[in-house]
Amino acid sequence: MKTRILALDIGGTKLAAAVFEKNEIVTRARKPTLAERGPDAVFERITSLLETLLAKTETRASDIACIGVGCGGPLDSETGVIYSPPNLPGWNAYPLKQKLEARFRVPAYVENDANAAALAEFHFGAGQGHRNIFYITASTGIGSGIILDGRLYRGTNFSAGEFGHIVLARNGPVCNCGGIGCLEALASGTAIARRAMKEAARLPRSLLAKAAAKNGRLSARDVAAAARAGDPAARRIFCDAATYLGLGITSVIHLLNPEIVIIGGGLSETGPLLFEPIREVVRKRAQRHLAEFVKIVPSELGKSVGLYGALAVTENRNGELR
Amino acid sequence: MKTRILALDIGGTKLAAAVFEKNEIVTRARKPTLAERGPDAVFERITSLLETLLAKTETRASDIACIGVGCGGPLDSETGVIYSPPNLPGWNAYPLKQKLEARFRVPAYVENDANAAALAEFHFGAGQGHRNIFYITASTGIGSGIILDGRLYRGTNFSAGEFGHIVLARNGPVCNCGGIGCLEALASGTAIARRAMKEAARLPRSLLAKAAAKNGRLSARDVAAAARAGDPAARRIFCDAATYLGLGITSVIHLLNPEIVIIGGGLSETGPLLFEPIREVVRKRAQRHLAEFVKIVPSELGKSVGLYGALAVTENRNGELR
Repeated sequence: MKTRILALDIGGTKLAAAVFEKNEIVTRARKPTLAERGPDAVFERITSLLETLLAKTETRASDIACIGVGCGGPLDSETGVIYSPPNLPGWNAYPLKQKLEARFRVPAYVENDANAAALAEFHFGAGQGHRNIFYITASTGIGSGIILDGRLYRGTNFSAGEFGHIVLARNGPVCNCGGIGCLEALASGTAIARRAMKEAARLPRSLLAKAAAKNGRLSARDVAAAARAGDPAARRIFCDAATYLGLGITSVIHLLNPEIVIIGGGLSETGPLLFEPIREVVRKRAQRHLAEFVKIVPSELGKSVGLYGALAVTENRNGELR
Repeated sequence: MKTRILALDIGGTKLAAAVFEKNEIVTRARKPTLAERGPDAVFERITSLLETLLAKTETRASDIACIGVGCGGPLDSETGVIYSPPNLPGWNAYPLKQKLEARFRVPAYVENDANAAALAEFHFGAGQGHRNIFYITASTGIGSGIILDGRLYRGTNFSAGEFGHIVLARNGPVCNCGGIGCLEALASGTAIARRAMKEAARLPRSLLAKAAAKNGRLSARDVAAAARAGDPAARRIFCDAATYLGLGITSVIHLLNPEIVIIGGGLSETGPLLFEPIREVVRKRAQRHLAEFVKIVPSELGKSVGLYGALAVTENRNGELR
């Protein structure tokens, strides 16, 4: 009986995998990606990770229905070919679907990680029962996955959902993408950390400066901790980033009129520090009939969104093919 | 034989209607809306306009397949009830579909005018052959209609496509909607005219000032004419508005990855004055694989987009119901 599904979450830093049965994790495991070793070496690490899980759960080849994969884009989710994601050096037109299918002899479905996470919340998390969902992943970068009329919207060449690169300032900071004033350059974990390092240098007696001295650097998590401890510069930086996120969400609400905006990724773990300014901005700036209507909530699946995302990809593809 | 379709475009200023057969206009007519007289008086004007067309074309009741309507929103396109559009005073929960069906005894389909125009370009204009279309109407206000994966996307409560109210400046001008820094407050015909009046007062010897003195006021059309005649302030104002439109389109390209962006409405008639700065901004600010790919073009249906929109609404609803 093909009752088990293999779920695989390929990140630039870690690989995570799980065996699912009836939408429950039977067992899970992770290991470092070691992306710098190139795609073939990473593929070997993936197969050994999956095989370890299969052995541990006594899953036979005949028990496996399919494999679901979430992976950094750009990628073509029809063919399952990966096109040079920034976090996976050397994956130039890498035929991941084909390689997995040849190795495990079951169908494999590949989706970009933000889309997979949106599907995860839609099928198993905060998005259940909703048809129009805007899922935001806010961590070092900012991305999104869009469910409209109950279906994943991928865009013309699988590139929809680049929420981090909407423009919020005509003359803003330069973004990694080459753009100017992108949301990601104003509100990502990287942007928060960069501003905090400047403030730490300017204010040597601040909590931020102490944290920077202790760790040698600052992360958005450090800035959140300093903000919670009452550091005024840290609070200002965090509130500012959240305000820009709120302005971006205001634009999305006007453009797409979603029922629910779900925020996942590392930044979302900071809770009210992030969500209060966002909700305030939306309340103040969006048209009332839209602002009152839309829910803005944290991811329900949290750190498991990657694995549930990979599972949801198989659910989605089976739905699309039915 | 039910081969004829009645198309009705309800604007705040004028009513336009046509009899279509095989997607061609048999005859068309228009008259002032006189919206200030309230919904019942306007409805009488609508029925007499349609009856005149029916008589003129010798169309019998049994020849009419259905009625398509484009109307200012907000409205519920399932029930065909209109909810207080700003340009139709007194239309509070006005059951337009029901009234038309009772009067003409054929199905009536009602859609908001920006959605109808997007459908018109999709079925009959610049969007033919494309599946992901972002249609912008840029005139006194700015709106949009969104076709994704070959289907009209209406949003959760029929309010998607408020492109005029995406946020482009954290501390920008106050918008009619109560928001701050909305695209509409920066780039609409109204915003262009407002800025031009200020410049005319500041520069009494400019072409702008002369046009203002002659007409008693300035429209975006006057500003475009002065820009074409070489007036530097007029050029600056127009280019600035087009730049903001380009920034908004850049955001949409990142978020929705459309194949084509189609711009209609009065502002689009200014041609290169509008399109050149827009295309330059997108080329400079959007990610290259998206910017090179997307077409940004004027509406093909031009001033007929309202009537073809009403026709396309019937096409779309029949497609959705099939």
